[in-house]
Amino acid sequence: MASEHAFDDLIAANRKFADSFALKGFDGVAAAGVAIVTCMDSRIDPLGMLGLKPGDAKIFRNPGGRVSEAALEALVLGVHLLNVRRVLVIPHTRCAMTSMTEPQLRDKITELSGVDAHWSHFHVVEDQERALREDVGKVRSHPLIPARVDCAGFIYDVDTGLLDRRV
Amino acid sequence: MASEHAFDDLIAANRKFADSFALKGFDGVAAAGVAIVTCMDSRIDPLGMLGLKPGDAKIFRNPGGRVSEAALEALVLGVHLLNVRRVLVIPHTRCAMTSMTEPQLRDKITELSGVDAHWSHFHVVEDQERALREDVGKVRSHPLIPARVDCAGFIYDVDTGLLDRRV
Repeated sequence: MASEHAFDDLIAANRKFADSFALKGFDGVAAAGVAIVTCMDSRIDPLGMLGLKPGDAKIFRNPGGRVSEAALEALVLGVHLLNVRRVLVIPHTRCAMTSMTEPQLRDKITELSGVDAHWSHFHVVEDQERALREDVGKVRSHPLIPARVDCAGFIYDVDTGLLDRRV
Repeated sequence: MASEHAFDDLIAANRKFADSFALKGFDGVAAAGVAIVTCMDSRIDPLGMLGLKPGDAKIFRNPGGRVSEAALEALVLGVHLLNVRRVLVIPHTRCAMTSMTEPQLRDKITELSGVDAHWSHFHVVEDQERALREDVGKVRSHPLIPARVDCAGFIYDVDTGLLDRRV
């Protein structure tokens, strides 16, 4: 069956990765004191784009790079248990979540899947700048995230690799 | 003020990263057809541990690496719009989300923050194996994720770098 071997290449690559594994004994703290909230987009290399390495940062990713309830939960845990002192919220240019309205996306998924998708929710971003301001505001004003934690909002340009601070 | 320069080192590192940026013009599809749901833990290098590179995979991360509603939304979009054909759900050993009960975590955050945290929710994982089976089940049975999409569940060992397929 196709699905029995669907992951063979990735598992083989993992065996090679483990051969030179160097993080044994690390704990889960953010060594650089950094947490990143960003999009699931495949063009984003959250550690690389900030000059960081594995062990340095807690990384929360969802469609659009939004500060959702789950992101806030992650940040509260990060700040109090895992050495997070700085939070970067990083949506990006040419994001699929900004290119359609929710009804358009429901129509599109219905068309592509052949299954009626009008019951489903897609958290599209109508105004990315405004969403970013609101998202940074949620972190800065959260009652369980102390004022000593720095939070800033950036847009990542997927065509230049540059971060542009906006908030 | 401290916070004015709180991100200077990371922004300087980003300028260096952009100097040798090679992904210009890439679109947001998953070049290797892969989506990964994993934990925000700093020890996890989702691309590296699978032998992948930027551009290859959509990566969704939250505390515990759970298949939440937002993760399912991400996967539906990934499958229909972004070339995802294989989904890996990857929680890990020594995860902070598996080490305390929710009341204990509320007490702990209350103690560390000095603010009453008993109103807040933390999605602890009581039984990681069971949670993984349920999470893979959610992907496999989701009405908007077709049967042709392969989904498997793994535990990542943060001390060896090895993935162990469980589902």
